[in-house]
Amino acid sequence: MRTLPLFSLIASLTFFVNAQRFVRFISTDNREYYGDAILPAGTTDAAKSTRARVIDGDILGDFKITDRVKAIKKLLAPLPSERVRTVRCVGLNYVAHINETGQVIPKWPILFYKPFTALNSPSDPIPISAGYQTQGDFVSKMDYETELVIVIKKRAFNISDDEALDHVLGYTVGHDVSHRGWQIDRGGQPQPQYSMGKGADGWAPWGPAIVSTNVIGDPQTLGIWTKVNGVTMQNSSTANMIFGVKHLVSFFSMGTTLLPGDVIFTGTPSGVNLGKANPVWLTDGDVVEVGLENVGTCTNALKYV
Amino acid sequence: MRTLPLFSLIASLTFFVNAQRFVRFISTDNREYYGDAILPAGTTDAAKSTRARVIDGDILGDFKITDRVKAIKKLLAPLPSERVRTVRCVGLNYVAHINETGQVIPKWPILFYKPFTALNSPSDPIPISAGYQTQGDFVSKMDYETELVIVIKKRAFNISDDEALDHVLGYTVGHDVSHRGWQIDRGGQPQPQYSMGKGADGWAPWGPAIVSTNVIGDPQTLGIWTKVNGVTMQNSSTANMIFGVKHLVSFFSMGTTLLPGDVIFTGTPSGVNLGKANPVWLTDGDVVEVGLENVGTCTNALKYV
Repeated sequence: MRTLPLFSLIASLTFFVNAQRFVRFISTDNREYYGDAILPAGTTDAAKSTRARVIDGDILGDFKITDRVKAIKKLLAPLPSERVRTVRCVGLNYVAHINETGQVIPKWPILFYKPFTALNSPSDPIPISAGYQTQGDFVSKMDYETELVIVIKKRAFNISDDEALDHVLGYTVGHDVSHRGWQIDRGGQPQPQYSMGKGADGWAPWGPAIVSTNVIGDPQTLGIWTKVNGVTMQNSSTANMIFGVKHLVSFFSMGTTLLPGDVIFTGTPSGVNLGKANPVWLTDGDVVEVGLENVGTCTNALKYV
Repeated sequence: MRTLPLFSLIASLTFFVNAQRFVRFISTDNREYYGDAILPAGTTDAAKSTRARVIDGDILGDFKITDRVKAIKKLLAPLPSERVRTVRCVGLNYVAHINETGQVIPKWPILFYKPFTALNSPSDPIPISAGYQTQGDFVSKMDYETELVIVIKKRAFNISDDEALDHVLGYTVGHDVSHRGWQIDRGGQPQPQYSMGKGADGWAPWGPAIVSTNVIGDPQTLGIWTKVNGVTMQNSSTANMIFGVKHLVSFFSMGTTLLPGDVIFTGTPSGVNLGKANPVWLTDGDVVEVGLENVGTCTNALKYV
């Protein structure tokens, strides 16, 4: 009997300190919760979780993982879009992707942005408005890009590589939905600016879990893949990133404040349509799964609207 | 005596309907207010205003212009940075600027973004961190760009050019502070992505007044200029914009939600250092005034930090 309070104390501390997989979800009571996802046996894909321990408080600030377990009815993006102030993205960060698209290896990370309105849930449709659909001789070159996503937990400004992970809550997987027609052909003639081809509403599915840095350990060892309608199209490892997680966080903090909830999409490996002799551009109804080892998957269908 | 109530009613309606120059300021009581700037005689530069009628409520929603007049001690940016969800910017929107920089005239607007943390007041220093200063053979190519800035007041999604102005609160002037070294030489080799050279904290002074659409009428007839340490460096007209205000708002709403408080920097005319045979890059202590006719000026000094 005397050991129980001590056991409870240790259990509480463990829950409090070591959040594993931050999720946000609708439960069977139709209410929204933050939680620490409980993985079913035999998988590390948080998208397959059906239960979570409820988290009280703010996962970007003070929070407590409780022992109340709730059923998951629908997994949402791990943060509401409104909590993400800035979405940073990296261009050309895998050598094989650079080679397939005929580019050169950059000496410094290539930064671009998406507006926060591009963020999407890990399961809802990706809307394609008329302006992005094929019109006359303008081809809708919709393409997939699977990426490791860094989530910032603590303000960062002019920090070093060694300090970077102290500012990171964890990692998730994201889909940098890309329209090559507006990104390249029409994006900034003759030198493309990426923004027009990547920023439409819902063009950045992410989640479902932010897996904490202590669970992942080294983020440069993770398998990363894409399946289109069940067929594998990208299959690589974050070991192939040119600029790793630590350097991206410190580099983007140069004279620039990164805030809690900011996210960084870290670039995609090879295998995208852009690099193919005979590309099969995505179209209405195509289902894209983006996956990251030990983190999870997002599965979203394109939807012409 | 019987005419006084009617006069008061008309005066109230006028104040309520026709906000002229939305400003935010610190008054002599050291409190912050929104206001409708009262222009001194002989100027339309809101930066010279010393008094304003206090506005109660939210200038992006319901508000009322009162008859309480307060002294202006310091003019702030017209909205707190936190109220601006997305900062859009246009590249290459004036023919003479395109010619001076050896580019080609784009067929579609070129979009890029700044993070909201780049926003700055119309008078505070523009901080230049070590990473942007000259280091060895890397030259700090700091440059000025004066731009008309559109402020969105009403959600816009897939709207037409004709509908655009219904979604606009008004116009102000902004400074798209640009580091050509990180924008071009190191921004996205070999094809530049603008983001790294334009997004540092404080690199987007704006304000001080959002001048309402009904005051400005046609936004494509306004003088626009830059002075560096008092010497005129840019001097053009918004008549020279390739893509005008209406089209930019409608174009950027393509499949993309523009929100109240979003701002659009609409590109700069010729006269920047980038186009000069012998550029005189900005450095610590240089004072840049950016001005827009009938709207106002921002005057900010570069500060090495």
